[in-house]
Amino acid sequence: MVEKTKVETLHVDLGDRSYPICIGAGNLSQFDLESYINGDKALIVTNELIVPLYLETIKARVKNKSIDIMILPDGEQFKNLEYLNLIFNKLLEENHDRKTTLIALGGGVIGDMTGFAASCYQRGVPFIQIPTTLLAQVDSSVGGKTGVNHLLGKNMLGSFHQPAAVLIDVDVLGTLSDRQFSSGMAEIIKYGLIADVDFFDWIESNRTRLLERDKSTLITAIERSCATKSKIVSADETEMGIRGILNLGHTFGHAIETFQNYRGYLHGEAISAGMLMAMSVSLKEGYLAKGNIDRVENLLAFFDLSTKPPKEMMPSDFKKLMWRDKKVQNGRLRLVLLERLGKALIDDKFSQLSLDSTLENACKP
Amino acid sequence: MVEKTKVETLHVDLGDRSYPICIGAGNLSQFDLESYINGDKALIVTNELIVPLYLETIKARVKNKSIDIMILPDGEQFKNLEYLNLIFNKLLEENHDRKTTLIALGGGVIGDMTGFAASCYQRGVPFIQIPTTLLAQVDSSVGGKTGVNHLLGKNMLGSFHQPAAVLIDVDVLGTLSDRQFSSGMAEIIKYGLIADVDFFDWIESNRTRLLERDKSTLITAIERSCATKSKIVSADETEMGIRGILNLGHTFGHAIETFQNYRGYLHGEAISAGMLMAMSVSLKEGYLAKGNIDRVENLLAFFDLSTKPPKEMMPSDFKKLMWRDKKVQNGRLRLVLLERLGKALIDDKFSQLSLDSTLENACKP
Repeated sequence: MVEKTKVETLHVDLGDRSYPICIGAGNLSQFDLESYINGDKALIVTNELIVPLYLETIKARVKNKSIDIMILPDGEQFKNLEYLNLIFNKLLEENHDRKTTLIALGGGVIGDMTGFAASCYQRGVPFIQIPTTLLAQVDSSVGGKTGVNHLLGKNMLGSFHQPAAVLIDVDVLGTLSDRQFSSGMAEIIKYGLIADVDFFDWIESNRTRLLERDKSTLITAIERSCATKSKIVSADETEMGIRGILNLGHTFGHAIETFQNYRGYLHGEAISAGMLMAMSVSLKEGYLAKGNIDRVENLLAFFDLSTKPPKEMMPSDFKKLMWRDKKVQNGRLRLVLLERLGKALIDDKFSQLSLDSTLENACKP
Repeated sequence: MVEKTKVETLHVDLGDRSYPICIGAGNLSQFDLESYINGDKALIVTNELIVPLYLETIKARVKNKSIDIMILPDGEQFKNLEYLNLIFNKLLEENHDRKTTLIALGGGVIGDMTGFAASCYQRGVPFIQIPTTLLAQVDSSVGGKTGVNHLLGKNMLGSFHQPAAVLIDVDVLGTLSDRQFSSGMAEIIKYGLIADVDFFDWIESNRTRLLERDKSTLITAIERSCATKSKIVSADETEMGIRGILNLGHTFGHAIETFQNYRGYLHGEAISAGMLMAMSVSLKEGYLAKGNIDRVENLLAFFDLSTKPPKEMMPSDFKKLMWRDKKVQNGRLRLVLLERLGKALIDDKFSQLSLDSTLENACKP
């Protein structure tokens, strides 16, 4: 007997660019993928680690379409224009026209690159997100941010291009490494911190079940994370204002990732350290209490996430890299701070001293 | 005494993406460029031929902004991802943030690349078009199509990204070569053919004044061309339908340009030959009269434009390259045909025989 899968469906509300997020366990092999492919052809973009795990399952869902496959190497260091061009080569060699659909099967790197390729190819074709990491499921697959890195900065090139659908199956999380799993937990904790203190409390209470990857608990965590993100994205698709709070810890975190050339900390590890640094600035600016920070640090450490930047980094490294961040406007750095747990704000008036002493402290051996 | 310049202003009506097209003689040195730059910084993207001619004039219009300059080599063969990346390098090295503005000072290649760079940089910044060729003034600077070529096809990568303003000065046309000038005339004639038979008649009557580059006649021709393009773009920004008629002759023309790797015919020369091929298919499909084609061929020849594809090209070359065109949808090739002079239609039901015999005839020695 095949167990009937419970599937939760959220809707990202963006007028004629609205789309569903389908969340379940085992739904990968049941999803009506073809109903989201308008033309006759599609290109699945994936990576070498995913191929033996899920490629056949997805191919079985698109039997009535002409399918090509593009397999990229695994890793953030390949998220650049050079590897993006391999996707374009494939599309052109196989004569994909404007009616094609791209399918991103993989983690955040695959999703971001596939989305960007879809937004540029023949000035824009649709794409579908099938995220296979916890990080991609709760963050990068939702909201339409696409892009690649540049040697001089993370995600510096990209577009806003919403997917036609997001398909999330928690069963795929079983094959994730512990580090990759925890990297996703950092973003889940972020949603509690910026917008939903009840959710933060819930994560604390359910930390053990989450660490054990209990499916039903994971579905709840993913759904609540995606719901928060959807709400914020619907209110501010192109990040003119409120959407910026999703970047808690990211200005610090991106500096870490760029410094290490994407070969050290995972994204969630970098923003874990970054969120604590943003909370330190918040504290020095008169928000929060020391006890709040300890509580968050304990939870991050429970998931074995980094609470400090890499020891090779100096305050001057942060400054140089942070001033290249997309959050800099007219030369002023903006940071996401926490007013309290569950309430973020975007601030470009914080004192330089708060930032300097945060960097000094964080970079102390 | 400084002569007061007559400036015509058209408006491209696209809601919150609307913008003005300012057309005049001598207005380059009088335009309030700074009012279109929101932030403190801007990057002028131009090419090595333009620098000695107009760069200082433009720099004098943005004295209160911090300006960087990116100089690209001149030519369609540099309109690719590799040279696009040079623009990104410059923006990042000079710490341009999301509030920057790009200024395209040059022909269609510079405009297309600068617009695409603006659409991708930090997921989108504004840009201004200052077209310095007749072709760019009447065509590529208006309508928001941006992009670069790929080895396997022209303009295969790009976006729709509308400029903040288009500044057209006919004085700059004085330095154009005869070939470059005629290349622009091909697009002007196109507007008459697809949508405005009175304009076609007017071009015929004013051919000598146009060839002599009489400024007042040119302003009229540019204004009428831009007005037609604006109207079509406003009705169909992302080319879901009617905008397609702007591509009369382009499916054939792009095949020529791709075949020659952008080193042979100029764009206008390629679409000149392409328009005659599209008219030949139209004739075979029962539209038009032979006399119409002769009349158009005479006018194109008057401006010394190509009326045949390059002699190295075979029908099979066209077929291979045309099937990679963006106008192919679900495997069916769509062509812009002329129902009569001044009235175009988009057709994917023409007989293969009409196309085949057109190609055979056109490729005959």
